[in-house]
Amino acid sequence: MKIAWVGTGVMGASMARHLLDAGHDLVVTTRTKHKAAALLDAGARWAATAADAAADADLAATMVGSPDDVRDVVVGPSGVLQTLRPGTLLIDFTTSDPSLAVEIAQRAEDAGVESLDAPVSGGDVGARAATLSIMVGGTTTAYERALPIFGLLGVTVVHQGGPGAGQHTKLVNQILIAATMVGMCEALVYAREAGLDARTVLRSVGGGAAASWSLEHLAPRVLDGDFAPGFSVEHFVKDLGLALDHAHRLGLDLPGLSTAAGLYTALRDHGGGRDGTQALVVEVARRCGLRWP
Amino acid sequence: MKIAWVGTGVMGASMARHLLDAGHDLVVTTRTKHKAAALLDAGARWAATAADAAADADLAATMVGSPDDVRDVVVGPSGVLQTLRPGTLLIDFTTSDPSLAVEIAQRAEDAGVESLDAPVSGGDVGARAATLSIMVGGTTTAYERALPIFGLLGVTVVHQGGPGAGQHTKLVNQILIAATMVGMCEALVYAREAGLDARTVLRSVGGGAAASWSLEHLAPRVLDGDFAPGFSVEHFVKDLGLALDHAHRLGLDLPGLSTAAGLYTALRDHGGGRDGTQALVVEVARRCGLRWP
Repeated sequence: MKIAWVGTGVMGASMARHLLDAGHDLVVTTRTKHKAAALLDAGARWAATAADAAADADLAATMVGSPDDVRDVVVGPSGVLQTLRPGTLLIDFTTSDPSLAVEIAQRAEDAGVESLDAPVSGGDVGARAATLSIMVGGTTTAYERALPIFGLLGVTVVHQGGPGAGQHTKLVNQILIAATMVGMCEALVYAREAGLDARTVLRSVGGGAAASWSLEHLAPRVLDGDFAPGFSVEHFVKDLGLALDHAHRLGLDLPGLSTAAGLYTALRDHGGGRDGTQALVVEVARRCGLRWP
Repeated sequence: MKIAWVGTGVMGASMARHLLDAGHDLVVTTRTKHKAAALLDAGARWAATAADAAADADLAATMVGSPDDVRDVVVGPSGVLQTLRPGTLLIDFTTSDPSLAVEIAQRAEDAGVESLDAPVSGGDVGARAATLSIMVGGTTTAYERALPIFGLLGVTVVHQGGPGAGQHTKLVNQILIAATMVGMCEALVYAREAGLDARTVLRSVGGGAAASWSLEHLAPRVLDGDFAPGFSVEHFVKDLGLALDHAHRLGLDLPGLSTAAGLYTALRDHGGGRDGTQALVVEVARRCGLRWP
């Protein structure tokens, strides 16, 4: 299949590589060309713009940074919808705005193109290993048509509903993670200040009702002062902003989400944007007049 | 061993039963005698007060409702420290105040009695199955002496430090759970209001970075509107109050904990005290002007 792939950041490059390895014919474009170098070396062709990439594609896939980027590469003057032929398929893998996904679905339909919003979770590790969870919004027809592609990228592929439902599901995922991270970081600061040995505490609390993926995988990094990003604070701030925005539009007052978004925003504003989400412990400690580690 | 057991509520009755079944000689007392009926039928003897129960005991164990209850049955005028002989052992399994644990350890030492604070997690199921996590504070000597008893009750038995360290560890456990529950309930309300099918959403988010014990075990109950208590809101409010109190004493400002404690307190004040902690979804919905289920 001829595939136009837009966006070759850490996630996008790994995902595109799986499609290339499966024998698909890839045309790639991304903001900074050198980030596509490995794909070009492996046989992908380069296009100057998203519209150029999509000109003779059967499928256009986008994995970019923000809703503004999605708007740019999909419906902008050099976006894929300028050139995608009727009968083709468009998949946006970016974690983006559910309302934008609905708008894109409508514009795609007007152009005779089927479209899906399909944000993922699983991070850079999941992208490399093709073990992503893919949350899909759009028509059943488009979903079934995309399944062979999704199967090359992830292991948990679930159709969540019509346009935007994939994005809403991803925001649910982020609401869950945010609260768990707040609890984890507050708990670890409390443990240290109460004079406990946090690693010993984890032996008691890690296997029962307090257990979580975050506690298992990120608490050890917090205790090591290892803030290397699996997922960066600045991206999480973007996602939590989307979640808060849509919660407000739905008339929802979610104090846990507000608290988490406030803490992560403060962490970014204090210079932690490029750190991993586990660096929240620094902000929790800072509010208490403490340093971490 | 002659064991005085004080407190035969849901947790205490199951725990005491394991000691009885292991061949220990039990004398029990509790506020409401009929709650000890099964233990008495199984061979335990009854005592009118904690002091009476402890009069010829080698070990006194307490599992009561609150720090005030602990104070009453341990250091009160009819408490176990009135009668426990020098050289005996005292274990408080109640989730209680770390400062009270320190005070009790001092008073016990004055009486020549070794003491441990040993709150548990694992709930009624863990108590019945003897799979509790036991978080122990006190001297190493006392800890090692109590290990054969702990081994009859739990599978994860960890010495966390000196007097009060068990209680602090349990509060860390509750801080973790509280935040996770807030995130879970907010996420499920968001999912419903965004038009998603929450069970389908759980297929996407349940296995990755958003995974938690709460999401796996309690989200299905939330979706069923099943608020039967594994652990009750009123007990959780007590625990979160202890955690907040000690956070303040340690000079810590923990906004996630404050948010969770506020929500759970409001839920109790709205009549949900006897429900399980998963009923928090009702309070989250109520704040948004919604009903759940």
